Amino acid sequence: MQHYYAVIMAGGGGTRLWPLSRQAQPKQSIQLLGDETLFQIAVRRLQPLFMPDKVFVVTSAAYRDLLHRQAPDVPLENFIVEPAPRGTAPALGLAALTLRRRDPLAVMACLTADHFIADEARFRGVLAAAHEMALKDYLVTLGIAPTYAATGFGYIQRGAALGDAQGLSVYRAARFKEKPARPEAEAMVADGQHSWNSGMFVWRAERLMQEFAWQMPGFHHQLAQIEAEPAALTAVWNGVVNTTIDYGVMEGAEQVAVIPAADLGWNDVGSWESLFEVLPADGAGNVVVGAELLEIATRNTLVHSTNPNRRLVAALGVHDLVVVDTGDILLICPRERSQEVKDFVTALKARADGKAFL
Amino acid sequence: MQHYYAVIMAGGGGTRLWPLSRQAQPKQSIQLLGDETLFQIAVRRLQPLFMPDKVFVVTSAAYRDLLHRQAPDVPLENFIVEPAPRGTAPALGLAALTLRRRDPLAVMACLTADHFIADEARFRGVLAAAHEMALKDYLVTLGIAPTYAATGFGYIQRGAALGDAQGLSVYRAARFKEKPARPEAEAMVADGQHSWNSGMFVWRAERLMQEFAWQMPGFHHQLAQIEAEPAALTAVWNGVVNTTIDYGVMEGAEQVAVIPAADLGWNDVGSWESLFEVLPADGAGNVVVGAELLEIATRNTLVHSTNPNRRLVAALGVHDLVVVDTGDILLICPRERSQEVKDFVTALKARADGKAFL
Repeated sequence: MQHYYAVIMAGGGGTRLWPLSRQAQPKQSIQLLGDETLFQIAVRRLQPLFMPDKVFVVTSAAYRDLLHRQAPDVPLENFIVEPAPRGTAPALGLAALTLRRRDPLAVMACLTADHFIADEARFRGVLAAAHEMALKDYLVTLGIAPTYAATGFGYIQRGAALGDAQGLSVYRAARFKEKPARPEAEAMVADGQHSWNSGMFVWRAERLMQEFAWQMPGFHHQLAQIEAEPAALTAVWNGVVNTTIDYGVMEGAEQVAVIPAADLGWNDVGSWESLFEVLPADGAGNVVVGAELLEIATRNTLVHSTNPNRRLVAALGVHDLVVVDTGDILLICPRERSQEVKDFVTALKARADGKAFL
Repeated sequence: MQHYYAVIMAGGGGTRLWPLSRQAQPKQSIQLLGDETLFQIAVRRLQPLFMPDKVFVVTSAAYRDLLHRQAPDVPLENFIVEPAPRGTAPALGLAALTLRRRDPLAVMACLTADHFIADEARFRGVLAAAHEMALKDYLVTLGIAPTYAATGFGYIQRGAALGDAQGLSVYRAARFKEKPARPEAEAMVADGQHSWNSGMFVWRAERLMQEFAWQMPGFHHQLAQIEAEPAALTAVWNGVVNTTIDYGVMEGAEQVAVIPAADLGWNDVGSWESLFEVLPADGAGNVVVGAELLEIATRNTLVHSTNPNRRLVAALGVHDLVVVDTGDILLICPRERSQEVKDFVTALKARADGKAFL
């Protein structure tokens, strides 16, 4: 797979893992799961399918050096800097432009920097299968077997079977549905014909450029301007539309394939509750990272510490709680309300002295 | 009140306020209520009735310097060091010996170092009244108006009225009852004839020595040995019985008076729950010491931080919780179970590496 490249989208922030994720320390850059940051994991798990020189990273100027320090084997010139965040469609357009210049035959695997995948070998197998389909000119999406009626994810309906690739079944993608209402989500999970949209895609860089030409001609023209005059990037970028690859390209595209990847152990780690689900629990159901837990009658509780001075967390008679200690901030909330942590971010943004905590 | 002296008993440890109270940092030495330690408060609130040179402190060698640094106005020679803890009877015997030598007419107010008293002026008024009764050769106890059927305190039954002292009614103490079962506690609170035993007493030093001679002759003999040969203190102390002043003297004494001190706002601060009750709450019922609380839907929760790096505690959707941050240890438990915190101390004592947390 000589012409196969990974593009890790690592521009975002993420407020639902506050207070660990912060403006200067976005979700992908933190040691959420243990010793490695999510970004380090995202780079490492690609090997040996993609060695570091085949890995590209799309991020902001603010995060480039931070991320490069975390993955120094990825060449600095492989870090593609967006002048401003404009959503995944522009980010991947900029990456496609960069890759096509380097290798006109480039196939790009567009990957997330901040998701958990338990079975990394199987993940690489799915990427290899997707590469095979991309060479047949499909826009390939990686589907996740849904485990509950999530209303926060997108869904992909499977259509006709397209045969096997690397031993995995591939289907035509019949329909994309973003963030459904709960009854529809329940129906889609029940019918066995839908996958969650993982936000990971594989295609030839040139094929993506064609889609931009057809579906986002204004943006395609802007990319051409940037290609002709790289110094104009920032100026052109100011006029670029803010949109996702799902809405801008996938929903209107032909020749879209989905590979339903079962048993990847995928999790978007989108909240403290998600992190609790991903990490191994002890015999009492407690999940502990970065601290020692001394407990009496404490169950199903997440303790996450990145406080270098914290030596012991003593918990008595609590259950289903989230406890996060970043040194300067201590967060305590029930697991079932951990999505609401973003409300603290909102509250702090409204405060004159809140910046220190963001 | 030229011959009136205060003796603050400051020897104990206290495990129910762990992790803030520690072996090297006993309850009386910590900033439980704010900027002052309980010991500093215990010394300061005596003024102007007792100026620092009239204040004596009974403590252990381990705590003497710690406490003297906290109250440098109390002369170092006023710190009476027990070779080992033997309960309140021996501690007060040693104090009586010291005071009698200094002033044969000494009246001693035996006070606690680690209790909260909201109305400090009224407290001094009660001590002045007790002094008047002590000069009439009574053993005077300070009674606390009970607010609930506590099973962890001692009770004093009032007998015949003995008249007024400094405008306060004084009664003969008819009976002492240590830590009753709940039905008896409920009956004693209901009958309006009982006070809690505050553990604070006023008497002439010589009068106490007489009681020792009658009721604890062995100990009285040991005190005489120490008086004759001060260098023998440690050797004699090894043979001293371990007992409380209540059991050793008060329960069997004649001429005992009780001054029922209503509305002192007394609290033994014997647990995190007690501390919650003592401190002022904000509009949401939360009590915060040493940290900033940023809360969403959080009620009736105690946050106590002595962690110098802690800048914010963010709590969402919790209630009736105790959160204590000492820097090295974080404690989380429901308020109603805060008495069980001592079980952590027990567990840590059983651990080879537990000493660092004790």
